[in-house]
Amino acid sequence: GTGADNDLYINQAIVFIEDAIQYRSINHRVDSKSLWLYRWYYSRTCQWILSLTITIILALAFIEKPSSLTITSDVRYRLPAWNPPCGLTESIELLCFLVFMADVSVKSYLIGWEEFWKNKWLMAYILTLIVSLSDWIVSLSFFCTEGVRIRRILRPFFLLQNSSMMKKTLKSINSTLPEMASVLLLLAVHLSLFTMFAMLLFARTKDGQPDKEWVGYFRNLPDSLTSLLVLLTTANNPDVMIPAYSKNRAYSIFFILFTVLGNLFLMNLLTAIIYNQFRGYLLKSVQSSLFRRRLGIRAAFEVLSSLKETPANTQQSYVSIGALLRVLQKVEMDSRCKQAIMRSLKMCSCDQLSAAQFQKLFEELDKDAIKQHPPSPEYQSHFMQKMQFAFGHPYFGYLGNVVALANIVSICVVLVMDADKQPSERDDFFLGAINCFFILYYLLEMLLKILAMGLKRYLSYPSNRFDGLLTVILLILEIATFAVYGFPHPGWRPEFMGLLSLWDMVRLVNMLIVFRFLRIIPNMKFMALVVTTLLDLVKNLRAFAGILVVVFYAFAITGIMLFEGAVIPLGNIRLKFFIFIFLFQTSFYIKKVVVLYFKEKCDFMAFFDCFQAEVIYCLFYLLSVNLICRWAKIYFVAWWLISSVIWVNLFVALLLENFIHKWDRRCHREPLSDIEYQRTVELMFRDVLEEPTEEELMEKLHEHPHLQLCR
Amino acid sequence: GTGADNDLYINQAIVFIEDAIQYRSINHRVDSKSLWLYRWYYSRTCQWILSLTITIILALAFIEKPSSLTITSDVRYRLPAWNPPCGLTESIELLCFLVFMADVSVKSYLIGWEEFWKNKWLMAYILTLIVSLSDWIVSLSFFCTEGVRIRRILRPFFLLQNSSMMKKTLKSINSTLPEMASVLLLLAVHLSLFTMFAMLLFARTKDGQPDKEWVGYFRNLPDSLTSLLVLLTTANNPDVMIPAYSKNRAYSIFFILFTVLGNLFLMNLLTAIIYNQFRGYLLKSVQSSLFRRRLGIRAAFEVLSSLKETPANTQQSYVSIGALLRVLQKVEMDSRCKQAIMRSLKMCSCDQLSAAQFQKLFEELDKDAIKQHPPSPEYQSHFMQKMQFAFGHPYFGYLGNVVALANIVSICVVLVMDADKQPSERDDFFLGAINCFFILYYLLEMLLKILAMGLKRYLSYPSNRFDGLLTVILLILEIATFAVYGFPHPGWRPEFMGLLSLWDMVRLVNMLIVFRFLRIIPNMKFMALVVTTLLDLVKNLRAFAGILVVVFYAFAITGIMLFEGAVIPLGNIRLKFFIFIFLFQTSFYIKKVVVLYFKEKCDFMAFFDCFQAEVIYCLFYLLSVNLICRWAKIYFVAWWLISSVIWVNLFVALLLENFIHKWDRRCHREPLSDIEYQRTVELMFRDVLEEPTEEELMEKLHEHPHLQLCR
Repeated sequence: GTGADNDLYINQAIVFIEDAIQYRSINHRVDSKSLWLYRWYYSRTCQWILSLTITIILALAFIEKPSSLTITSDVRYRLPAWNPPCGLTESIELLCFLVFMADVSVKSYLIGWEEFWKNKWLMAYILTLIVSLSDWIVSLSFFCTEGVRIRRILRPFFLLQNSSMMKKTLKSINSTLPEMASVLLLLAVHLSLFTMFAMLLFARTKDGQPDKEWVGYFRNLPDSLTSLLVLLTTANNPDVMIPAYSKNRAYSIFFILFTVLGNLFLMNLLTAIIYNQFRGYLLKSVQSSLFRRRLGIRAAFEVLSSLKETPANTQQSYVSIGALLRVLQKVEMDSRCKQAIMRSLKMCSCDQLSAAQFQKLFEELDKDAIKQHPPSPEYQSHFMQKMQFAFGHPYFGYLGNVVALANIVSICVVLVMDADKQPSERDDFFLGAINCFFILYYLLEMLLKILAMGLKRYLSYPSNRFDGLLTVILLILEIATFAVYGFPHPGWRPEFMGLLSLWDMVRLVNMLIVFRFLRIIPNMKFMALVVTTLLDLVKNLRAFAGILVVVFYAFAITGIMLFEGAVIPLGNIRLKFFIFIFLFQTSFYIKKVVVLYFKEKCDFMAFFDCFQAEVIYCLFYLLSVNLICRWAKIYFVAWWLISSVIWVNLFVALLLENFIHKWDRRCHREPLSDIEYQRTVELMFRDVLEEPTEEELMEKLHEHPHLQLCR
Repeated sequence: GTGADNDLYINQAIVFIEDAIQYRSINHRVDSKSLWLYRWYYSRTCQWILSLTITIILALAFIEKPSSLTITSDVRYRLPAWNPPCGLTESIELLCFLVFMADVSVKSYLIGWEEFWKNKWLMAYILTLIVSLSDWIVSLSFFCTEGVRIRRILRPFFLLQNSSMMKKTLKSINSTLPEMASVLLLLAVHLSLFTMFAMLLFARTKDGQPDKEWVGYFRNLPDSLTSLLVLLTTANNPDVMIPAYSKNRAYSIFFILFTVLGNLFLMNLLTAIIYNQFRGYLLKSVQSSLFRRRLGIRAAFEVLSSLKETPANTQQSYVSIGALLRVLQKVEMDSRCKQAIMRSLKMCSCDQLSAAQFQKLFEELDKDAIKQHPPSPEYQSHFMQKMQFAFGHPYFGYLGNVVALANIVSICVVLVMDADKQPSERDDFFLGAINCFFILYYLLEMLLKILAMGLKRYLSYPSNRFDGLLTVILLILEIATFAVYGFPHPGWRPEFMGLLSLWDMVRLVNMLIVFRFLRIIPNMKFMALVVTTLLDLVKNLRAFAGILVVVFYAFAITGIMLFEGAVIPLGNIRLKFFIFIFLFQTSFYIKKVVVLYFKEKCDFMAFFDCFQAEVIYCLFYLLSVNLICRWAKIYFVAWWLISSVIWVNLFVALLLENFIHKWDRRCHREPLSDIEYQRTVELMFRDVLEEPTEEELMEKLHEHPHLQLCR
């Protein structure tokens, strides 16, 4: 009947608007039941369960069989880690797989059969699940004793396919690959030509003299290639050239030429190319997000305009305001936006909306969120008004900064004075008394500010929240100290009592005081700019970080499997290897590992004494097992390329992009102190984005696989 | 008289046009004698003498008293270097100073008294000369025995003040300093806050256990600061964190936080800021160059329009074509431009030029130089025409590339096969025979190409010149080999004869063959783009490199003076220190030196065995002399900041700028194979430059201190 039809249209409009808000594709089934399933699938609970499942399956690696979750990393003092019995982690895995199977079925059903065949991500999802389940069955049938577990390498795929932002970023990265490959090819040509030069230049001489350069670095082709590759990371510079240099200074020209060409030119060219390529693709992906939003809104308009209650109009379609209000009440969206749209709707005098008006109404979604702080309390008493003026004034805040600085300086002075003293000679009284005084001041400052601004206004500023929280923690710590150790007095050096010794308590308080000093940041203009840029970057970086986690996870598991045979004699430190690289995913560390790894002439025991970290065991054990040596080389070089070369350059590109946009924006308008803008990658590009035309939207709508529009 | 006036005007116009061509300021005296002096001063001979003088005075450092110009750098095998007698280098210096005094007098006279007081560079020049001369007198009166020689540090100033491009670049760098200082301040805050944290975190515990982290890296404030500063260069990572990490894994969070914040965010932010700031200033400086050019042309127009032979016109001023032709004949400029301007003048039907027409005529100067290759010879014989078609076809070039690749592969195979053989087992016959064959092919290829293209056309391509030159050298080497060692035959292993042994000859030939393989570059599109970008970069980089040389020279001389007392006991290796840093001015090395320097716990003898380079002596001697220790630290950190942080970032900014412009340009128009553009930094920005308006030009002209315009 007409009523049921109308309900369907309303529900469709609700879902399309929610799609627009979340930048989702609208190409899904639109019948009543499917819409209910769709809204249920994208409800918070469902998505939360899915995220939790992904987290659990990824976190399994930390407790699975080659586990090493212990506090110390020193194998000599460590207790053996807990190993779960066979079947425990496997049953958790099965539960996760069941959730994923439900997920993929619902997703496939919702987009429909035809779309399913076009969607490569869904196909890959199903394939991954099938492979994982088969591997799981094999694993159980061997009672968890088999070594190669492919499903572990595949796990990060579940994280990848669940985030549309990550898929988009991956697409961007994928598009820059040809250019990156060109530069990497160039780098390979550079490397191989110089390797040949080096082998000819540092060849074994016929006169029988021992040539240290040849023996050390250019003995054969793999050695030469390795030496120069490591030189490209600047890690064995200048060791690699010292023997030749001490024979004849002119040999250094070869190394300088190689370093300048490879490191200064080609490596930075890679940055330039990635920046240039990536800039365009980021904009493109944001542009397609905008298109999705406009398309969702337009689809909602089209279905609402075919409601029977609307008078038929041959020329143009309209939507009645009543229908839109009904839709809006049911749509799940940010309450601020909803209120703003409602307000505009009430201000509108007409009772029908054209497509353009409808679209304009929802532009509220694209706007910056402007945060208004609650007003200060109004005091009647003249004295209180004066107090409010004095303690609400910025100068009072500056005074607080000066006091915090004084506190830092006093701690610093005490540290310098105590540096050379024996622990037994140290007097804790001075620092205790000083900190007691300063913490009282901080408490007073907080209370006076709350008095002047009112609690609500005080808490609405992030800097005040930070400040207040730390002050309260400091106060609690100080009271705890006094409760356990009594009030400070000269010669205050009590024995260990309670949870922490007095010295530890004082250290903790001092660290918090140093941390609290960061409150000065918003007061310094340039620093505030830098910090907001960094915070924006962190927001926009989530997709990148996700992809890094995916790549890293796959790499670490591959590493564990690859080096399993080599590492077995040293006990279950295989996963350590994983955690170790995890902790040092910053590229800086990898460089060093590669060097250590390639320094084949080192004395094992010397390094053992120096470092005492298990990674050294792993690496040197790998070295002694000659068979895996080459695999390990390729593995490390691949990881260096991905983490140090490509990822760092992508990061630099993103930072350049963010910073330059921000800087340009700063020059255009001065930031107002009371308004805080929340920027996302979409808003950053707003000035350069193109609005999709009506024709494009309608053409796309008519291509919708499930929605039949009347006209 | 009128004739003399006319001659003066003509001469003025000539000089103004030459100023415009060279982007020089026109604010100099314009009377007849001064103009003669001006043209003489800027003549090639004069400028060449000046450049030679600057080169000589800078090169003096290599032979001056603490000299170490020897082939080997190993102090054990080295003969003592030649030390010039007192008075030799000093008299050369005096000659140079005399040239500089003449230079500064002419320059000061030419710009006039009023302008002189405004010109800070000239004042600094005179001041430098006075200080240098006083120092020279002091030096001679002590019979060259005094240690501190200020004039050596001042020497690079002569290089700096002679290049307008370097002065401009310095101005750009100077303008970015406030922003750089902000980030460096931020870095300092970051460093000091983390130092305090570290000192509190890794404090000496009261329980008396030896804490390796504390002992090794955080014993007191300077130690902690140094450890974290070196961590910022990623050089002591992960050594610095291993003791803490092996105690408790959670300590690594501190180091990761420090590295990510400092190294990934702040350091890259510095790149972003320098790129953003520098981009604008480079454009600005190019804009001011354009203004100078337009101003020079306009000034020439104005003086020519006041020639008496031109009919007076109250409304607008005109220049007669005859006068311009007379000027053009005497102007020294690129012959291609001159011909183009002459051609346009002849095509112009009118006999007078307005200001706009005059300006337009000289726009030829801004245009890209388009290089036309001479035509191929036209053969009558049908056979020769076929030959010409076959060997002039690109496919013949590709065949040559394939043959070159085959040669490289064969050399590579022989090298791999010979790698493990003893020199006595090696058979030179195979390589000799192969190379003989390939070199014959190269010769044939060259001759056939010359036949097909004609010698002139062949030589007009840079790739052919490169190819031909190498082929000729290879041929000569091969003939020389045969002349000395006879034709190759199995078991061809003759004894050492002539200048080089057979093995050295073969190696040299092979290296040239590898080098010749670079001819494939223009055939690969992306590689060609990268290489042209790099070549452009080198052109635009001269000013930067000059400033680096200036800074480095001053640094090296300061280092020699600073560490003189410390290094005396080891003989005259002071200047080695200078040369050593000179050879490794790339930032990469400095990092390592700083590390070696700060690794105070190393065993002297172990390092001596490992490196055998005198820099190690210097550094460890410095360490043993505690007094200079702090100075050395500050010196190294300053050099790290300048060479590794600031200069490398400036370089990256320039590379990004160049590459992105080039890339955008490539997308706009496809490069034609027969036309080669010569790009400069001016041409790169042509699309975004603004033409100065008539009013701006006239206002500037009326401000000219020596030129009185009639109207």
